[in-house]
Amino acid sequence: MSEKSASDIENEVQDWWQTGIIDMEPGKIHYGGYAIEDLIGNISFPAMIWLMTRGDLPTPAQAKLLEAALVSAVDHGPQAPSIAIARMAATCGVGLNNAMASAVNVLGDVHGGAGEQAVALYHDIADRMKDGVGLTDAVAAGLDHQIAEHGKHITGFGHRFHPIDPRAPRLLALVAEAAEAKHISGQFGVIASAIEDTLLARKGKRIPMNIDGATAVIYAELGFAPELARGLFCLSRSVGILAHAWEQTQQGGRNKGPIPRRMIWNYTGPKRKAFDVDSKSD
Amino acid sequence: MSEKSASDIENEVQDWWQTGIIDMEPGKIHYGGYAIEDLIGNISFPAMIWLMTRGDLPTPAQAKLLEAALVSAVDHGPQAPSIAIARMAATCGVGLNNAMASAVNVLGDVHGGAGEQAVALYHDIADRMKDGVGLTDAVAAGLDHQIAEHGKHITGFGHRFHPIDPRAPRLLALVAEAAEAKHISGQFGVIASAIEDTLLARKGKRIPMNIDGATAVIYAELGFAPELARGLFCLSRSVGILAHAWEQTQQGGRNKGPIPRRMIWNYTGPKRKAFDVDSKSD
Amino acid sequence: MSEKSASDIENEVQDWWQTGIIDMEPGKIHYGGYAIEDLIGNISFPAMIWLMTRGDLPTPAQAKLLEAALVSAVDHGPQAPSIAIARMAATCGVGLNNAMASAVNVLGDVHGGAGEQAVALYHDIADRMKDGVGLTDAVAAGLDHQIAEHGKHITGFGHRFHPIDPRAPRLLALVAEAAEAKHISGQFGVIASAIEDTLLARKGKRIPMNIDGATAVIYAELGFAPELARGLFCLSRSVGILAHAWEQTQQGGRNKGPIPRRMIWNYTGPKRKAFDVDSKSD
Amino acid sequence: MSEKSASDIENEVQDWWQTGIIDMEPGKIHYGGYAIEDLIGNISFPAMIWLMTRGDLPTPAQAKLLEAALVSAVDHGPQAPSIAIARMAATCGVGLNNAMASAVNVLGDVHGGAGEQAVALYHDIADRMKDGVGLTDAVAAGLDHQIAEHGKHITGFGHRFHPIDPRAPRLLALVAEAAEAKHISGQFGVIASAIEDTLLARKGKRIPMNIDGATAVIYAELGFAPELARGLFCLSRSVGILAHAWEQTQQGGRNKGPIPRRMIWNYTGPKRKAFDVDSKSD
Repeated sequence: MSEKSASDIENEVQDWWQTGIIDMEPGKIHYGGYAIEDLIGNISFPAMIWLMTRGDLPTPAQAKLLEAALVSAVDHGPQAPSIAIARMAATCGVGLNNAMASAVNVLGDVHGGAGEQAVALYHDIADRMKDGVGLTDAVAAGLDHQIAEHGKHITGFGHRFHPIDPRAPRLLALVAEAAEAKHISGQFGVIASAIEDTLLARKGKRIPMNIDGATAVIYAELGFAPELARGLFCLSRSVGILAHAWEQTQQGGRNKGPIPRRMIWNYTGPKRKAFDVDSKSD
Repeated sequence: MSEKSASDIENEVQDWWQTGIIDMEPGKIHYGGYAIEDLIGNISFPAMIWLMTRGDLPTPAQAKLLEAALVSAVDHGPQAPSIAIARMAATCGVGLNNAMASAVNVLGDVHGGAGEQAVALYHDIADRMKDGVGLTDAVAAGLDHQIAEHGKHITGFGHRFHPIDPRAPRLLALVAEAAEAKHISGQFGVIASAIEDTLLARKGKRIPMNIDGATAVIYAELGFAPELARGLFCLSRSVGILAHAWEQTQQGGRNKGPIPRRMIWNYTGPKRKAFDVDSKSD
Repeated sequence: MSEKSASDIENEVQDWWQTGIIDMEPGKIHYGGYAIEDLIGNISFPAMIWLMTRGDLPTPAQAKLLEAALVSAVDHGPQAPSIAIARMAATCGVGLNNAMASAVNVLGDVHGGAGEQAVALYHDIADRMKDGVGLTDAVAAGLDHQIAEHGKHITGFGHRFHPIDPRAPRLLALVAEAAEAKHISGQFGVIASAIEDTLLARKGKRIPMNIDGATAVIYAELGFAPELARGLFCLSRSVGILAHAWEQTQQGGRNKGPIPRRMIWNYTGPKRKAFDVDSKSD
Repeated sequence: MSEKSASDIENEVQDWWQTGIIDMEPGKIHYGGYAIEDLIGNISFPAMIWLMTRGDLPTPAQAKLLEAALVSAVDHGPQAPSIAIARMAATCGVGLNNAMASAVNVLGDVHGGAGEQAVALYHDIADRMKDGVGLTDAVAAGLDHQIAEHGKHITGFGHRFHPIDPRAPRLLALVAEAAEAKHISGQFGVIASAIEDTLLARKGKRIPMNIDGATAVIYAELGFAPELARGLFCLSRSVGILAHAWEQTQQGGRNKGPIPRRMIWNYTGPKRKAFDVDSKSD
């Protein structure tokens, strides 16, 4: 079939899958060059997340900020579709892994992509500033660009339930602290605050930063790509998803629907009508 | 690395994946030995489903019964967790494929496995009869075994919403018709009716067959393995899942939760309390 | 809590979920106004798919074309990621519903969205023609627009494995037949052929229509929205996914990876290095 | 519709979803009674995972052991089905959340349920000891029971790739350390070692504990229910799944199959044959 040698073909097959993340041989596992037995017990779970997604180890200050972001987004209760789905799934006879999958799966552009869009917005504004534009003008141009691309809803700012999202000010305080200690540049906290100011000026009312806007400040400061803001949010929210799937499993219930069983949806379609069997053939 | 020849290794790699379903070379695709261009336009979608899962073509009578079962189970409305999940997913910014996946995923032992269990129960009773046990005794023994294994809930019989599930009598009439025409044996329709009688005698009230019990009669008559009863139900319900995900996409909405937005769940956990920062270190 | 009446609140809750697809009360189920017991045994599975996604019944000619498209796309073998995922999942101890979910889930923009993009391209060209532009110019403008938006890869044309995709000519012949019989307009077949001609003129070689391009002709002729091209493909491919998950289940195997077990991936990351425990604190 | 009062009905709807995990009102979010702003920056991510799944805070020693277990199981490379699926998904045009979902979904009884089964086995042995049976006899009886229920494969012991799984001894050393410091009982480490001894005596060769057996010792020591061993493994493995999905996204590729593109599977099905169109009607 081929004029390649046997080892050429083995190499071809092995080359089909390439990774810089994990290096393995029988009895040995290394991540980013470090032996697993050296990492276990010595690095924190957030540091491991960093190592896996970035290829090196974070500083303690970086790990601390990442940990704060991961802690902050675990759960928003059974009215969040991700959590409701996990709970419903748990009543349908699937394992916790399946309930988690159905739920994490919906953390899409609207539910889970808000942080990704916010990091992209912050990067866009920072890039304009690198080109010499002043903060206020860069924010205005960045917002206009974002609105043109994605519509007038500015992800990361405003919350339909919380007048002030209690997670955001706490996260921003940690960012400010780290900036003061020179552990991070602090530029993305400044940009995010300037966005709030511009939105206030434009709309006549404050639209405060929410969890997605605040964690995006952290992810941008830590150098994560925008896509990873979504990925890290998925890791964080998986905790709440697991907790609710497990609580629902313990509560029991079979095939639990969204509203109490005796109530039924509002039907808006065509009136009932007879089916004409003869109409089948033409 | 190896003393195998190049073609040995190519064979080893190609042997890693083996299938009797699809035979392909550039420009040619065959399923079960038939060229795809001969099948398209000539066989029905249910016949194609049969060919893929069984390896040969059904008779027209078999295809007709399979089609009836597939048509019957597409949807049970937004109170079914599978449908509610599809609709919620559609408001979270994911594609129709993702909404379908999150929803099909929950068709587990409770929501989707009922047909699988019912086929297994019918098989168990038929096996007892093959060993010479009479119908009534075989049903009693089959039910007792089922209850010992899976609890007192007999899947396939009774419905929490429909006093009589309107899909079941229609499916059973088609089964009876096919049995009279000698297209099928009819034994599983007899077994299922005898289960109804035994449940009536045991409980003092009729617990009529539901959609799962009736489609299981068809799947058993057609010779499908119990596991495929679940798989075929997934194909059928995928239609309703797609329809609702698409309708919800058109309705719009963002991150739609299970109950109206202003309402919130009942919290049953510990009282609010202060967090003692100093308790962190021991 | 509210000045609304009890029935106002019940209505509010019931209105939270609205659908025109299914109308239900105890003992009765109607889709698009038709009683389920009238549909079972009387309409084909493709006609049911049409009713659920469109709200009315297809003509026999429409149902026949939809059926052909659904039959054509069920499977492309274990080298397709969707099929490989289904088979791997089946070796990890999950149910057929879960294996189907993991696999259908990946029918995204690249794997499953090709038909959706092709329908959108055909619509765009048809709209230009409605505005008075001639076929050739409309095709050229449509292609240029598509390339500007999505890159130079024109979905629906060309196949990395099949010089000529055997499914496409057969589907197009059915479209031509239906157009000749005046069951459909035939305009989208004309547009798709003109795209082939323009690509030939531009690239100097024929890039023949593939399964996605051909089914998109059918879906466009039948009036399906582009998004539903993806949804219908998911229904079709679910059949192959189920068949392969089931075949793999019967073959057995535990935690089956992509390549033969003794082979391992090519590691491309950092060299092994010591972990400095003291570096943990700063 | 009802004789209930308006607030009765609001309560009925709100009671439909009940949780002890999260307590929320506009501007306030509490988990297990603690305000989120008090938790962010003050507790570790593993402590947050504990709080969400257990309802209270861990001691530092408990959090440290949980952290070690979470760090240990993140990844086993592209030959693990979960990781291969994440990488394939990333080439099909879906988001990181979707790639994670398809992959986490397959952490079922075989791939992800090993830890769950191991915790259950340890509990079973511990329960026998509570009833007065000695260690060796309790282990023998527990193993016999496990084999009768689940077959001769003892999850948690032995590894098809690693002669000694490098993660297990390190985790067990941390368990021994914590037991010596009286932070945990240490009984499950003793039980797991006794299982190794019994397997050695029965089979004549050592079948050393693997990652699942070792993390199960930790989860059992920490008082997690067996089901949560699977859930916690899903959280841990989600990290590797994310990392590989992201790396593959950066590598690019479209619809990447399991083996190199030019190779094709081994077809084992029926020979090619003609399709008899006339056979359609009976």
